[in-house]
Amino acid sequence: MSSPIGKTKHAVALEVESKNPSASPAGFKIFNRIVDWITNDRMQLINVTERINEIVRKSGVRDGIVHLQSLHTTTALFINEWQDALLHDVRAFLDDLVHREEYYRHNDPAYSDCERSNADSHLRGMVMGQSLCLQVRNSAVLLGTWQSIILAEFDGPRSRSLSIQVSGI
Amino acid sequence: MSSPIGKTKHAVALEVESKNPSASPAGFKIFNRIVDWITNDRMQLINVTERINEIVRKSGVRDGIVHLQSLHTTTALFINEWQDALLHDVRAFLDDLVHREEYYRHNDPAYSDCERSNADSHLRGMVMGQSLCLQVRNSAVLLGTWQSIILAEFDGPRSRSLSIQVSGI
Amino acid sequence: MSSPIGKTKHAVALEVESKNPSASPAGFKIFNRIVDWITNDRMQLINVTERINEIVRKSGVRDGIVHLQSLHTTTALFINEWQDALLHDVRAFLDDLVHREEYYRHNDPAYSDCERSNADSHLRGMVMGQSLCLQVRNSAVLLGTWQSIILAEFDGPRSRSLSIQVSGI
Repeated sequence: MSSPIGKTKHAVALEVESKNPSASPAGFKIFNRIVDWITNDRMQLINVTERINEIVRKSGVRDGIVHLQSLHTTTALFINEWQDALLHDVRAFLDDLVHREEYYRHNDPAYSDCERSNADSHLRGMVMGQSLCLQVRNSAVLLGTWQSIILAEFDGPRSRSLSIQVSGI
Repeated sequence: MSSPIGKTKHAVALEVESKNPSASPAGFKIFNRIVDWITNDRMQLINVTERINEIVRKSGVRDGIVHLQSLHTTTALFINEWQDALLHDVRAFLDDLVHREEYYRHNDPAYSDCERSNADSHLRGMVMGQSLCLQVRNSAVLLGTWQSIILAEFDGPRSRSLSIQVSGI
Repeated sequence: MSSPIGKTKHAVALEVESKNPSASPAGFKIFNRIVDWITNDRMQLINVTERINEIVRKSGVRDGIVHLQSLHTTTALFINEWQDALLHDVRAFLDDLVHREEYYRHNDPAYSDCERSNADSHLRGMVMGQSLCLQVRNSAVLLGTWQSIILAEFDGPRSRSLSIQVSGI
């Protein structure tokens, strides 16, 4: 499955793990999946809404919570409208909120053994957050008309894993 | 019900949907409500704490989670102290964090068909987040002495819906 | 138990409340703890990952959610890599994102009876968020290789309480 990123970029989603739901006798269920995305750019926004909805449908949970957690500090998960013009503004805003070309100890060999020079990526991931909890209603993720779930890559290209847990009844 | 916003502004909360809780036989319960607020200003902060506590009490859940999700990209949910002077500082900070009078593609008819010129509202909603998960203890939302739940309108006046899910035992 | 903060600072974690888990007959469990930390600096970052993992192990929950909530508006909870050089950058970034030495009504006796001059602490806590929800898998908090759970003090030294709820099966 491919997710459109702006007009020309694509990310490939690979489902790497699959589990049967753990159900308690009374109907409370937990369903876990890990999905991988391969990113192409240093900063990239990926619309994961449809992928998450597929997993929610498979989970068998009708009413509950879907919890998304990126397993990487230099990524983020958030909600916004999926519109090319706005996505351009989002990237510009994040570039401006945390400047890449500033002095950071994390990028300085005198203080750090990290060779990726990615302090800006860490700070963007920290501010925007790496987990997101949304409601499941009638076997779908509850989202307003203009809300899309966005996975942000801040230090690509990389392979990125998202852990998705659907729980409820 | 009206919620005080600063000293002079009010928002009207309309409860538009009501459901009986879905209970599993063993006592795990999920209770869903959608509540609407009508806002008066472009940027407006609304204290929704009491309204959320009422819903938690009605839910019959004693121990668990209350999940709040605004269904609009140009709003946010967060926690802070509810004090007039501080709310003034919050508005000034958010104005400064994302400037309204800057060039945004989302506001440019050459790139976007959005006529609301609300790129700043989208960016504020994205940074502050549109969902909030809090603990329920002894049939009430767990909050510290100075913590209030704040719904932020960034592109009003509008009617805004909050989906509230209480789950637990 | 002490948690290392940078190279020289320590915070003391005091467990102040302990409850038996509330279990529904079918296996859905909720386990609540409140843990206190005593902080030493005005801005201080504390790695609480190990402490949270201990509580998750004690909870008896194998698959589910751990919800962390700080009970104080001038604190935050977030995820980042725990590396001295990067923690220095995090503090510098937060200092720069919200300036302490600016005019705030919350710090002005003409508008506010708060005597702590801590408007910057409130704004930092608001932007970074006071609650965090993470997955529990195989009786441990699910975290990527470089992800640590960080409690941020923005108005210390103080005693700070974190409410931890583990739920699931």
